[in-house]
Amino acid sequence: YQGSYGAPAPAAANDPMWAYFTAIAGQDGEVDAEELQRCLTQSGFTGSYSPFSLETCRVMIAMLDRDSTGKMGFNEFKDLFAALSGWKQNFVMFDRDRSGTVEPQEMGQAVFAMGFRVSPQALNVIIKRYNKGGRIYFDDYVACCIRLRALTDNFKRRDTMQQGAVSFQYDDFILCTMAI
Amino acid sequence: YQGSYGAPAPAAANDPMWAYFTAIAGQDGEVDAEELQRCLTQSGFTGSYSPFSLETCRVMIAMLDRDSTGKMGFNEFKDLFAALSGWKQNFVMFDRDRSGTVEPQEMGQAVFAMGFRVSPQALNVIIKRYNKGGRIYFDDYVACCIRLRALTDNFKRRDTMQQGAVSFQYDDFILCTMAI
Ligand SMILES: [Ca+2]
Ligand SMILES: [Ca+2]
Ligand SMILES: [Ca+2]
Repeated sequence: YQGSYGAPAPAAANDPMWAYFTAIAGQDGEVDAEELQRCLTQSGFTGSYSPFSLETCRVMIAMLDRDSTGKMGFNEFKDLFAALSGWKQNFVMFDRDRSGTVEPQEMGQAVFAMGFRVSPQALNVIIKRYNKGGRIYFDDYVACCIRLRALTDNFKRRDTMQQGAVSFQYDDFILCTMAI
Repeated sequence: YQGSYGAPAPAAANDPMWAYFTAIAGQDGEVDAEELQRCLTQSGFTGSYSPFSLETCRVMIAMLDRDSTGKMGFNEFKDLFAALSGWKQNFVMFDRDRSGTVEPQEMGQAVFAMGFRVSPQALNVIIKRYNKGGRIYFDDYVACCIRLRALTDNFKRRDTMQQGAVSFQYDDFILCTMAI
């Protein structure tokens, strides 16, 4: 077995999540937004929170869909569960009054704690966009976190000189903002 | 009545849509996303198409919400109905096979006809983001049109020299992409 240290990771078939994934993915072997929504609802992931909307499931897939098929393979599926667990912990932590929602001032702290440095004006726009009746629900919180992270990553990747400014061509601007 | 030519437009109270608006807006005199969704569903605006999702209603409000309250006043409400009528005509026109959905190749024609000049790559990303099972439904079509228009407008407003390129500061980039 000497040579096995350099061998590839155990096949997906040995992974306990593999059977779960294949049951959800169906015939095409990939998970689309509707399959993902069903799976996250049945798995009870959101607990006492409302189930994820189809829109948020599409944002999740767009985040991980490196090959632009609009669907998720097994590794992307596992990445998603890891990211979701992180956001759930984060959400519970910032919902200090245990209302099941994050209120505007709590949202500012959450965004800051995740490492995003945005102005009060940008934060206000984000809260306006993702609140329902002045509160931010877990579903919208996740959609917001994913978009904020993806947009920030897209920006940073282009800001090679780390100047805090990027020159976008129109097409590239549309491409990286409409994707998510 | 000589002087009346320069007088302000007839008060909103004389507008046939005013009673309708006030009934929907409720006590606060403004329409939020949930009120808008109810109103568009009850008015039968989408006809045989599925009703608008709450997400699309929020995108509609974000588009018109110049004062960032997350709600719509009367004039914004009228602007929205005018824009929606245009998109509906547009959608019906590009749904050539009368399937009730716009297919990827029809979407390319629609985006082009609306005056947006995007690359095949950007178009592909847009279609991936807004399709369900390879088709684009009216609800998603409207959300897509609104975002594409708002992002293009934000870009053009900054591209004062019309060079097709804009330098964004990080905060401004987040502000104008997370708003919609
Ligand atoms: Ca709370
Ligand atoms: Ca209201
Ligand atoms: Ca069609």
